[in-house]
Amino acid sequence: MKLNLDRLNDVNNKSMDLHKAELDLLSQKLDKKCINAEEVIKDISTLQVATPSWALGTGATRFGRFPGGGEPATLEEKVGDVGILKQLSGQTSSISLHIPWDIPENAEDIKDLASSYGLTFDSMNSNTFMDDPRGANTPNGLSYKYGSMCNTIEGVRDQAIQHNIDVIEYGKRLGSNSLTVWLADGSNYPGQANFRRQFENVQDCLQKIYKEMPEDWFMFTEHKPFEPNFYSTVNADWGSNLLLAKGTGERCMCLVDLGHHLPNTNIEQVVSRVIMEKRLAGFHFNDSKYSDDDLTVGSLKPYQLFLIFNELVEYLKGDEKQENELAWMIDASHNTKDPMEDLLQSFDAIALAYGQALTIPRTALNEAQLNNDVAGGQEILQDAYRTDVRPLVREARMRQGAAYDPVAAYRALQVRKQLIDARGTRVAVTGL
Amino acid sequence: MKLNLDRLNDVNNKSMDLHKAELDLLSQKLDKKCINAEEVIKDISTLQVATPSWALGTGATRFGRFPGGGEPATLEEKVGDVGILKQLSGQTSSISLHIPWDIPENAEDIKDLASSYGLTFDSMNSNTFMDDPRGANTPNGLSYKYGSMCNTIEGVRDQAIQHNIDVIEYGKRLGSNSLTVWLADGSNYPGQANFRRQFENVQDCLQKIYKEMPEDWFMFTEHKPFEPNFYSTVNADWGSNLLLAKGTGERCMCLVDLGHHLPNTNIEQVVSRVIMEKRLAGFHFNDSKYSDDDLTVGSLKPYQLFLIFNELVEYLKGDEKQENELAWMIDASHNTKDPMEDLLQSFDAIALAYGQALTIPRTALNEAQLNNDVAGGQEILQDAYRTDVRPLVREARMRQGAAYDPVAAYRALQVRKQLIDARGTRVAVTGL
Amino acid sequence: MKLNLDRLNDVNNKSMDLHKAELDLLSQKLDKKCINAEEVIKDISTLQVATPSWALGTGATRFGRFPGGGEPATLEEKVGDVGILKQLSGQTSSISLHIPWDIPENAEDIKDLASSYGLTFDSMNSNTFMDDPRGANTPNGLSYKYGSMCNTIEGVRDQAIQHNIDVIEYGKRLGSNSLTVWLADGSNYPGQANFRRQFENVQDCLQKIYKEMPEDWFMFTEHKPFEPNFYSTVNADWGSNLLLAKGTGERCMCLVDLGHHLPNTNIEQVVSRVIMEKRLAGFHFNDSKYSDDDLTVGSLKPYQLFLIFNELVEYLKGDEKQENELAWMIDASHNTKDPMEDLLQSFDAIALAYGQALTIPRTALNEAQLNNDVAGGQEILQDAYRTDVRPLVREARMRQGAAYDPVAAYRALQVRKQLIDARGTRVAVTGL
Amino acid sequence: MKLNLDRLNDVNNKSMDLHKAELDLLSQKLDKKCINAEEVIKDISTLQVATPSWALGTGATRFGRFPGGGEPATLEEKVGDVGILKQLSGQTSSISLHIPWDIPENAEDIKDLASSYGLTFDSMNSNTFMDDPRGANTPNGLSYKYGSMCNTIEGVRDQAIQHNIDVIEYGKRLGSNSLTVWLADGSNYPGQANFRRQFENVQDCLQKIYKEMPEDWFMFTEHKPFEPNFYSTVNADWGSNLLLAKGTGERCMCLVDLGHHLPNTNIEQVVSRVIMEKRLAGFHFNDSKYSDDDLTVGSLKPYQLFLIFNELVEYLKGDEKQENELAWMIDASHNTKDPMEDLLQSFDAIALAYGQALTIPRTALNEAQLNNDVAGGQEILQDAYRTDVRPLVREARMRQGAAYDPVAAYRALQVRKQLIDARGTRVAVTGL
Repeated sequence: MKLNLDRLNDVNNKSMDLHKAELDLLSQKLDKKCINAEEVIKDISTLQVATPSWALGTGATRFGRFPGGGEPATLEEKVGDVGILKQLSGQTSSISLHIPWDIPENAEDIKDLASSYGLTFDSMNSNTFMDDPRGANTPNGLSYKYGSMCNTIEGVRDQAIQHNIDVIEYGKRLGSNSLTVWLADGSNYPGQANFRRQFENVQDCLQKIYKEMPEDWFMFTEHKPFEPNFYSTVNADWGSNLLLAKGTGERCMCLVDLGHHLPNTNIEQVVSRVIMEKRLAGFHFNDSKYSDDDLTVGSLKPYQLFLIFNELVEYLKGDEKQENELAWMIDASHNTKDPMEDLLQSFDAIALAYGQALTIPRTALNEAQLNNDVAGGQEILQDAYRTDVRPLVREARMRQGAAYDPVAAYRALQVRKQLIDARGTRVAVTGL
Repeated sequence: MKLNLDRLNDVNNKSMDLHKAELDLLSQKLDKKCINAEEVIKDISTLQVATPSWALGTGATRFGRFPGGGEPATLEEKVGDVGILKQLSGQTSSISLHIPWDIPENAEDIKDLASSYGLTFDSMNSNTFMDDPRGANTPNGLSYKYGSMCNTIEGVRDQAIQHNIDVIEYGKRLGSNSLTVWLADGSNYPGQANFRRQFENVQDCLQKIYKEMPEDWFMFTEHKPFEPNFYSTVNADWGSNLLLAKGTGERCMCLVDLGHHLPNTNIEQVVSRVIMEKRLAGFHFNDSKYSDDDLTVGSLKPYQLFLIFNELVEYLKGDEKQENELAWMIDASHNTKDPMEDLLQSFDAIALAYGQALTIPRTALNEAQLNNDVAGGQEILQDAYRTDVRPLVREARMRQGAAYDPVAAYRALQVRKQLIDARGTRVAVTGL
Repeated sequence: MKLNLDRLNDVNNKSMDLHKAELDLLSQKLDKKCINAEEVIKDISTLQVATPSWALGTGATRFGRFPGGGEPATLEEKVGDVGILKQLSGQTSSISLHIPWDIPENAEDIKDLASSYGLTFDSMNSNTFMDDPRGANTPNGLSYKYGSMCNTIEGVRDQAIQHNIDVIEYGKRLGSNSLTVWLADGSNYPGQANFRRQFENVQDCLQKIYKEMPEDWFMFTEHKPFEPNFYSTVNADWGSNLLLAKGTGERCMCLVDLGHHLPNTNIEQVVSRVIMEKRLAGFHFNDSKYSDDDLTVGSLKPYQLFLIFNELVEYLKGDEKQENELAWMIDASHNTKDPMEDLLQSFDAIALAYGQALTIPRTALNEAQLNNDVAGGQEILQDAYRTDVRPLVREARMRQGAAYDPVAAYRALQVRKQLIDARGTRVAVTGL
Repeated sequence: MKLNLDRLNDVNNKSMDLHKAELDLLSQKLDKKCINAEEVIKDISTLQVATPSWALGTGATRFGRFPGGGEPATLEEKVGDVGILKQLSGQTSSISLHIPWDIPENAEDIKDLASSYGLTFDSMNSNTFMDDPRGANTPNGLSYKYGSMCNTIEGVRDQAIQHNIDVIEYGKRLGSNSLTVWLADGSNYPGQANFRRQFENVQDCLQKIYKEMPEDWFMFTEHKPFEPNFYSTVNADWGSNLLLAKGTGERCMCLVDLGHHLPNTNIEQVVSRVIMEKRLAGFHFNDSKYSDDDLTVGSLKPYQLFLIFNELVEYLKGDEKQENELAWMIDASHNTKDPMEDLLQSFDAIALAYGQALTIPRTALNEAQLNNDVAGGQEILQDAYRTDVRPLVREARMRQGAAYDPVAAYRALQVRKQLIDARGTRVAVTGL
């Protein structure tokens, strides 16, 4: 399904006068801080965030799931949904698949389809944290109940390795160039496992998978402190993740999910550390108040998001570079929202935080820091954060033919109604 | 299925010599603190913990479920499993049902069956946190997606009220005398809901249900800070719970689940507060490290469990009493353990903590507190906690014909094998 | 010391052209949401925040203190500093004293002095959490080492009661009309204290003090989960605080300090609860990331501050009112900032959050909530938050003759230099 | 002051009959698990924990300090106090000094004095987190207000380096062989500092200090997430600490303080990681419920302490060894206890946890883990933990001529009274 862009322009035009006035005044203000609004708009346009296939359907908690209507049931429909998101936002141009939920039966066909929407295939996600959710057995018929790569049973570890190699194969056919490995491995009770043996088993498996990757591929490992294991997790923190990445190979990088941290963690400093070690894979964006809540990006802690982008802009505009391009992905789960609206809100929040961080006057900030001007440094960051840079984000979107206000446009164009008309009300999406 | 008790005695007898020596020496030691071991053994025997029907099958996280074999598929089989737990532990003599997972088609038959195992029916649990998990519609065909009793839509609230009245009806037929209300109601995002309207709607619904309860019934409300809602929960903390209970009626009491607290909460002081207000319903026992992890009782924070029982013993041995008997229930979920073993471990941990708390010399403790003897008060508690009172717990069990070591006996008697032989390996339990 | 306002006007005038353009455009935008900018400006002007005397000097942690220069050494100098803050910000017009740090030797003189700056005396703070910090003995020569009102020793409790009555006396002479009671009372170790006895002792003391208050006075009690006691605190949470307030009397109200909550607490919902119970005293504003960090208001979690003001505006613009005016106070401690700059930043952040909350279109928000429009409700709040309403705050300030940008003006006018010239570099402030 | 050992024996003898019976029965029980009680007793005796000089006086929070009587005012008196602790417990035989609080004017004399008590000098602690607390200026007259080794000002960094070199010099004269570096360095507000520059400055300083250490010395760096900085800390977590240690040199090791972790951290797994990387310096033992509460060891989370010792015993009894001996130190602060009692309780708790961990049947545990026997592994650990091994700890103490129950003996011998008689009631100790 593709949107009728004429109607989108109609919707946009209603806000155009105000938009121009706001953009003008903002450009003047930024000028005074020696920030060129045009360049910021271009940078914002360049930031393209991958849409994960599993975020296109209603999410679940362990207490139930409340699916909405018109959800995509096939990989083709998922690609179509991302196409719509691209049209509305101009902020996503790739899809990240999850195996075995999204096995492409015919890679060429699905590549062509994606291409017709201007989409490519982002990082491939493997799954060794549940037995095959489609009811069939795992490849070797062994269960991940007690872990996958950390398992004391060699057969289970081999099965996990093979699954990841299979995922790489799928990805190669689709033109992806990275494998994302999130492991649930750990333990629920003291005494259940030996921490070190678990770590060494995981390390060994990652090395074996790494060897099977094409030379231009990257592996992304992702840490998480707890859930679904509630006593220990093998890749529990950025320290463990960094050890694993370094122990695996040069192209093994650390992925940061914003919800995968203990209470009160200074995530922006964690990001700085990983960048310093030249091991940042990129992000799984979402937001949370309590644990891995998987809420819409920027919905709870927008200032934290800005501070993270402050670190990222410092890196992106700096001289020292890693080999990999940073990977920007959403990883949210919206039990009570229309998934498409949730994603549009998330793209918007990311672009906004990026825009705010791009308008920080870096020389002045550095000066304040060198002088131990505590209040002054704070004022500089807050001024950038408090300035409403939405005109830049909207301009970036509209220059790509997308919406002034994507959620409003989605509603005005009655996209969900069209999807329900086409697909029905009770089509279950695969995945979480 | 009933166990062959002869074999149980054989198993027990192997440990009898050591047991007697330990019990003797412990009794001597307690004597010196003016604690009568016989009385402690009797008190331990009296503590009977309800088994929740949903804990008899393998639990799930949102990341999957790994069911074991021989799990009960019917209410009859669940009752049978609790019967086995009673035989092995002597520590459980009732079952707590969850509607709609355990609708008793014929109440008299199931009552008779339970009776044949020496079991009664404990508190009845309603469910307004998911649409009917069996795929059928809710009574009024309305969804709990946006909450139940807090919902802005009157029809949804009416449906939630009606469901609870139905649950009371089932309970009356089974001889239960309390209704447990845990609500997932809340919101996922700032702006989604008005905190006060949600609270007032819930209060109003509880009042309406309360009016429908028989006069000898109690209502138990249970707070929880988050999950499955990740921004706000209506009954989020003991303060909200107390307001709701007082606003509902004299027989509305506050249930404390050990996993339903923010990080670092001093739960034992919360218990003291609720007792002071004469509103303690009792407990949902489990353990946790991070959030509502639903781990085996006493597996992570055994000293905290002891400190909670310290408060309980003070209440139980004191003069001021509430109208209700305290309700002792397990609420754990064991994804990676045999559910029966998990429950046996939990009963054991509860009895142990109770036994330790019973052997605190209260006069000496009070003396130390009156004298601001900080180290002295600590020493008294630690001495009681460090003393190994397992001989008392074992003796209490064996006097009821149960096992010296229930988990070991469960294994020695190959109970799980017998259950699998009878029921097969892949019978899914209903519920979470 | 009073500032030369001519120079302030010069400083302000430099920003006037841009300010007018911004204010115009913002007013237009708000008009579209049916928000009248003029009214918001007036409301912002009305919000006057009390300055605590102890925030005028450099704060300390237990790891040392790094005092700056020109700090006030006497009550007169503290009043003078608040006068300067009033001139610069127009956002503070009262001072909150702490006894015994600020004992007014001659109440009439200090009242006259304050009056000359346009200042009054806000809530009086008692101190029963440390023995007299000036080295002298406490009134009865008894120590608060093991608590004050919770103490098992009657003499200590009497001393704490008497101290609070003395503080009321000082306050009466100064024209204050409330007493703020924050208690450190609690325990460091399990076994040290009986939770209930501690609570009942505190309750009893508060009642006795309450009886000595004039009939138009209010008592404010303030909860805190931990520090300086690290196992339990008597007034640990809003639930305990509400019980104490209700048990004390109708004019006993609950004060909320933003840093006095366990990790991840939904503070805005706590505020809603206390308002619902008609017991909100007001706020001790500050910000924190980890515990009671006492950082500048709005420096870490500005969105949370906005959400709290969302609740406050709902109350202030609603029909149901408490008897007391809400009390707005800062309670921050700035170890590494110029205290005056810190306070100016805090006033600014409070006004900004208030301004943002005032521009929420309440009818639309209510509509979204009634319709369970989750994304829609979020969008409405975020739009208000993302809109840069600083022009309204600045206008409110300048209409009172204060600064466009108070921190910048403070620096441009070299206020600290003037204070150091007048007072020297090493004058130690009393208090924390 | 030395204790009269005759009286100690009298005290001990009262408990001897019961002790022998308990020790006998316990030895039998351990035999069944193939654990030799004699060997455990010997191992417990070998564990000697250093006493920090600053723990001999009453601690403080930022809310005040309540000193007791008879506290040591000089280094000589501190050494004497540790001598008493050694006599009573047999569990400490060294003292850890803090510069500048404990500058030894004459190293030889103080060494001789220590020697007369059978004491040596443990790790030397530097202080660059406060300006000289004795009121004098820092060596270069520069303040640590904005950090020490992380500071943007080279002179401050040089001063911090020089201070650490001075501390090494003092240590050399006293026979110490390690330097403990805990840094408060960080920031209070976003914008105040550049995370990476701070880290690199600290790294550079540590390298310079490391070069000045004798070749047989070790450097211990210690992480902490927050306090006294409340936004970021340079050495915030074990990941940062490991990077710093590896970046500094082979003999730079990571010290773990039990109170320096974010809420819910799995500390035992952190210990396992650092051991795996061969970088464990040892421990700063204490306990906490909320943050860096500095409570008595084992007073809040005794099971966690046992699980940490489980990791340590695995290391100590294993084949792979680091170059350094593990350093065992207390780092507690007892505001409301007699410091000596607090230390005696801490030694006892450490020995108890060690004893429990030594009686884990490792082969059986390993077997359970290899078989994914979750409940079985838990049972094995819990059995070791629940067994009362205090008879082994008491026996280990008494074989060294120390007390059956050190706190009871301390009281029976009226040690505090003797100290007050000798030193008076109001002698202030130096330090925190």
